[in-house]
Amino acid sequence: MIRVGIVGATGYAGAELVRLLLGHKEAKIVWYGSRSYVDQKYADIYQNMFQLVEDICLDDNMEAMAEQVDVIFTATPQGLCASLVNDNILHKVKIIDLSADFRIKDVAVYEKWYGIRHKSPQYIEEAVYGLCELNREQVKRARLIANPGCYPTCSFLSVYPLVKEGLIDPDTIIIDAKSGTSGAGRGAKVDNLFCEVNENIKAYGVAGHRHTPEIEEQLGRAAGKPVLISFTPHLVPMQRGILVTAYASLKKDVSYEEVKAVYDRYYEKEYFVRVLKKDVCPQTRWVEGSNFVDVNFKIDQRTRRIIMMGAMDNLVKGAAGQAVQNMNLMFGLNETQGLQMAPVFP
Amino acid sequence: MIRVGIVGATGYAGAELVRLLLGHKEAKIVWYGSRSYVDQKYADIYQNMFQLVEDICLDDNMEAMAEQVDVIFTATPQGLCASLVNDNILHKVKIIDLSADFRIKDVAVYEKWYGIRHKSPQYIEEAVYGLCELNREQVKRARLIANPGCYPTCSFLSVYPLVKEGLIDPDTIIIDAKSGTSGAGRGAKVDNLFCEVNENIKAYGVAGHRHTPEIEEQLGRAAGKPVLISFTPHLVPMQRGILVTAYASLKKDVSYEEVKAVYDRYYEKEYFVRVLKKDVCPQTRWVEGSNFVDVNFKIDQRTRRIIMMGAMDNLVKGAAGQAVQNMNLMFGLNETQGLQMAPVFP
Amino acid sequence: MIRVGIVGATGYAGAELVRLLLGHKEAKIVWYGSRSYVDQKYADIYQNMFQLVEDICLDDNMEAMAEQVDVIFTATPQGLCASLVNDNILHKVKIIDLSADFRIKDVAVYEKWYGIRHKSPQYIEEAVYGLCELNREQVKRARLIANPGCYPTCSFLSVYPLVKEGLIDPDTIIIDAKSGTSGAGRGAKVDNLFCEVNENIKAYGVAGHRHTPEIEEQLGRAAGKPVLISFTPHLVPMQRGILVTAYASLKKDVSYEEVKAVYDRYYEKEYFVRVLKKDVCPQTRWVEGSNFVDVNFKIDQRTRRIIMMGAMDNLVKGAAGQAVQNMNLMFGLNETQGLQMAPVFP
Amino acid sequence: MIRVGIVGATGYAGAELVRLLLGHKEAKIVWYGSRSYVDQKYADIYQNMFQLVEDICLDDNMEAMAEQVDVIFTATPQGLCASLVNDNILHKVKIIDLSADFRIKDVAVYEKWYGIRHKSPQYIEEAVYGLCELNREQVKRARLIANPGCYPTCSFLSVYPLVKEGLIDPDTIIIDAKSGTSGAGRGAKVDNLFCEVNENIKAYGVAGHRHTPEIEEQLGRAAGKPVLISFTPHLVPMQRGILVTAYASLKKDVSYEEVKAVYDRYYEKEYFVRVLKKDVCPQTRWVEGSNFVDVNFKIDQRTRRIIMMGAMDNLVKGAAGQAVQNMNLMFGLNETQGLQMAPVFP
Repeated sequence: MIRVGIVGATGYAGAELVRLLLGHKEAKIVWYGSRSYVDQKYADIYQNMFQLVEDICLDDNMEAMAEQVDVIFTATPQGLCASLVNDNILHKVKIIDLSADFRIKDVAVYEKWYGIRHKSPQYIEEAVYGLCELNREQVKRARLIANPGCYPTCSFLSVYPLVKEGLIDPDTIIIDAKSGTSGAGRGAKVDNLFCEVNENIKAYGVAGHRHTPEIEEQLGRAAGKPVLISFTPHLVPMQRGILVTAYASLKKDVSYEEVKAVYDRYYEKEYFVRVLKKDVCPQTRWVEGSNFVDVNFKIDQRTRRIIMMGAMDNLVKGAAGQAVQNMNLMFGLNETQGLQMAPVFP
Repeated sequence: MIRVGIVGATGYAGAELVRLLLGHKEAKIVWYGSRSYVDQKYADIYQNMFQLVEDICLDDNMEAMAEQVDVIFTATPQGLCASLVNDNILHKVKIIDLSADFRIKDVAVYEKWYGIRHKSPQYIEEAVYGLCELNREQVKRARLIANPGCYPTCSFLSVYPLVKEGLIDPDTIIIDAKSGTSGAGRGAKVDNLFCEVNENIKAYGVAGHRHTPEIEEQLGRAAGKPVLISFTPHLVPMQRGILVTAYASLKKDVSYEEVKAVYDRYYEKEYFVRVLKKDVCPQTRWVEGSNFVDVNFKIDQRTRRIIMMGAMDNLVKGAAGQAVQNMNLMFGLNETQGLQMAPVFP
Repeated sequence: MIRVGIVGATGYAGAELVRLLLGHKEAKIVWYGSRSYVDQKYADIYQNMFQLVEDICLDDNMEAMAEQVDVIFTATPQGLCASLVNDNILHKVKIIDLSADFRIKDVAVYEKWYGIRHKSPQYIEEAVYGLCELNREQVKRARLIANPGCYPTCSFLSVYPLVKEGLIDPDTIIIDAKSGTSGAGRGAKVDNLFCEVNENIKAYGVAGHRHTPEIEEQLGRAAGKPVLISFTPHLVPMQRGILVTAYASLKKDVSYEEVKAVYDRYYEKEYFVRVLKKDVCPQTRWVEGSNFVDVNFKIDQRTRRIIMMGAMDNLVKGAAGQAVQNMNLMFGLNETQGLQMAPVFP
Repeated sequence: MIRVGIVGATGYAGAELVRLLLGHKEAKIVWYGSRSYVDQKYADIYQNMFQLVEDICLDDNMEAMAEQVDVIFTATPQGLCASLVNDNILHKVKIIDLSADFRIKDVAVYEKWYGIRHKSPQYIEEAVYGLCELNREQVKRARLIANPGCYPTCSFLSVYPLVKEGLIDPDTIIIDAKSGTSGAGRGAKVDNLFCEVNENIKAYGVAGHRHTPEIEEQLGRAAGKPVLISFTPHLVPMQRGILVTAYASLKKDVSYEEVKAVYDRYYEKEYFVRVLKKDVCPQTRWVEGSNFVDVNFKIDQRTRRIIMMGAMDNLVKGAAGQAVQNMNLMFGLNETQGLQMAPVFP
């Protein structure tokens, strides 16, 4: 039984980790870390866990946690994990960091986009970017995982095969993304009030969202050269879900069948990536509550562009689910352990 | 492995049965019955099941189904199950009817409130009202289960202990209920369009909703005499969830602790009924996606009334989950098998 | 042209006052008072007013405001208006207080339910409860209006004629109310985040909500004796709208036509109260954005109870619209001036 | 007083025409045309109009209507207006067609994208594309207006100045649009049920939506050469509102101030187009219920692209409001007559 500690268990991503790990046969949460709710019963904060979780919230002391657990999930804003991790901890436990601290290899890029100094750049090199579909073997051997961002996961998986195969010009990639509101976290902000979010859609972080360099780094590796993209996230009046609509120019004439064959080649063995049938557009509702990413594409012969689409639950495959997927690989379990629940509809 | 057939697998309740049974270790759906989608792939209608369900929808032929399955769930409007069931079928399989056909013992009451003739009144007597918390032992021996209605389940469990113990005057019971829109089914009706339901709340079926006699019959048994209640359902702009707010006059002065002790006595061994802590009001979101019913109460000393509240997912404990709970009991399984998933939040 | 000052112009009720007064031919806002946004452009906070309002937010200094305006609206939480008002101000301007400070005649009741000391009880007696349909003549002569609460407005208008006419037993009145989230204000609280409110319904303030004594006082006047009611508000995942479902025992056998005649007698000359046709249930969406209250009823012969229903936009008739209606009366204008916009649907 | 007839008064766009025209001082609806609700009271179908509209729905007989009205609005699906209009009618009344029938000058393009034969191509040439900001003078003299589509209105106004000024390469334009559900109409379809739309976002009509050639034709005129764009609409779980996020490559280095000056030059005299302040992103909620289009842009120096954004209420500026704006021009009224209501928030 894997003993688990969670730093930030009372945020939305942390709460989703709790939900998923409660249903995981091989893991047991022994430390519910929180900054705001120390000494309170976890189930008093998340009433869905009433009679399911009896634990009290502890603080976010990673040193103490490392004595009692096998793996630590850090589900906190950027900066915290990097400020807490050290050699002593890394010798004792595996760390799966859901923040951005170890996702970007170039520390200068990180510091520029996030506007903070990186507190432990010495671990960036060893950290494995935990997109299992891409780095499965490295994940298995890692002790520090940079769990991918929600937008990057969905964006990358939607366009990766065509970048890798050179079917599209990576410099023409435009990613228009739409997210539910849980991605904004549980902080008490006017902008996230029901009456501000409901009956509304808006773009935000235009030409400056922090997930941009993360997507670019991964696509750059696939392309074999630096890639610059346009990335625009939008806030949608729903709780969960990310939809990516990506555009790129085709480098040559291709048929539906050819492109489909490429996607199938990359994903047919991937349990969590579903390449939909022809003309079926991904919808966030068909993946809600699950670890699936649904992808598909449409060739626009008129403009010689291709539209690539992906849908995903931002709290599952975009955060907690992918983190558990990483944990499974790191501990030699079946990758799908505890993650095979069907999407919930309606 | 229990072989399952579903009549009406493409409605919302049927789809929820599919979701729950996919996660059930001891059951396997072998017949996806449908009227509207015969010969289509089930996963083409419910894309959440893409790559999870490969089956084709079959018709609703209960005779043929009975040859191949151990249990049939009928998730269809009233009248259908009663028109299909016969001795031959009942000799071969167990039936769990999610419609109202066998819930009301007095056929005249059924026919009056539902406005149709009952096609097989000869089975009403043997049918067991499948509220497991109430009729557990009878359910185990039953071959025909009348799965309770969504409103009745939540209403009954919220007020039952106090009626049974005689703490409230049953003739003063008023039940004001609120439901998400999935309870209205997947039929294409203007009234259920997004633009008609969203940003709106309304009462419907005032003083005439068909679930009224079902609640009255069960409460009447508990009270030991006929009971008439006021029951008003409302449509809420959400997908899942039922909230019941019930009012009744107390028959004597009681303290919080006394009433709490009553609820605890009835429900402390019931896995799926959670009596919340003092002053915590049930909320539909804390039970969403799960088989739990959260109940609580508040004594109003000023008016000598008590307000009893219950929250439940109408598609799970109010339909498919309770049906699976019944199936578990009928087949000698652990009652919670396949139903222990934690509520999903947010 | 009436010069208007608003204390609390940046809350939701204040913003609705701005919207309504912009469309009012005889009024002009000259002071946008705010505590949080002093010196900022009003339209930078409420972007809907971009290019429509050029003013800067000023502070909430009621003394200074009284020098420049003819009427002051206080759209702030309880306690503020009572702490600011004085003889000097009242000699210069009329005040329409949207808070609870002057609604309840018995200061002890106010102080008990609101948990604060009343700072200027000397004005309670002269203050007129600004329910125009009830106190039209007094409103015309008032200099201090206690603008009714949202729940009380809808609750009272739904049941008033039957209480006044003695058709129902006032001691049996139970009011189950449902409100959109704008009623909770624009404060940054976790409980009002989109992800907490959406897909959820809950009761709150059970047996203790502060609008209870306000409703009771007004119904008591109508009944000619003290009245105690049960009042339970619920939070609904929508922005605007209040729906009231009220229950009471009939004191004698009455027909639909008799009750309808009573409602018509009280409301047929009231522009803003619409008695719906038989069997049409009020819905919040049919009054959204307007100053209408839709009411109707259903007699339940089985239980000898009557179910009375009312729907209203909490920000309009429940707050800003009713305040403008009061202003119109106080300044000798047509009562419907600036308030005749049709409800918005969808 | 302009006498108005509406063909299709019981659809969402028709109902919005009714709402707007009720508040219009110079117009009076004398014919509520409908196909589905002939002989029913209009206010029985749209209860928001109870006691505001006493009329009965008449049929959609345009010949008869032309005898009694000065202007006919056709708020019906494509094909109907073209099949009804004739010389006799056009001699008697002005027509504002909210469908696509007369928007596209090349009848072959219309017939290809809409998949139907055009029934009266002889009127296409004289029809004026009723985007007032573009064709104000022609609108004033027109007798047949092709009221622009919702997506085209918002898309065109967002990118037009930069295309016209040659700042962007029109062949690189990608328009990613998001719409509320009222755009899908009031037809009873499973896809538009609350439980299907809520908590979901999806693209639809990818690379094939019928508004594409309409946008291309108008942009082509601005560019002085044929333009091909990528256009992808998405369905958002909200009632009203369209948000356009458009991408294009800049043809030369430009500063924020230069681009802002261009937008201002085109729109500073346009009451209904609001160019927002720097870094303020358009949001649908800030225009809800109003005839405004909010536009803004962001230069992305890294990719040498510009992101252009526009937000609009699809039922107002995207349909009924723009139609009234056209009517105002055609009848010599002030263009803003009846359209100056402030956006509703929240």
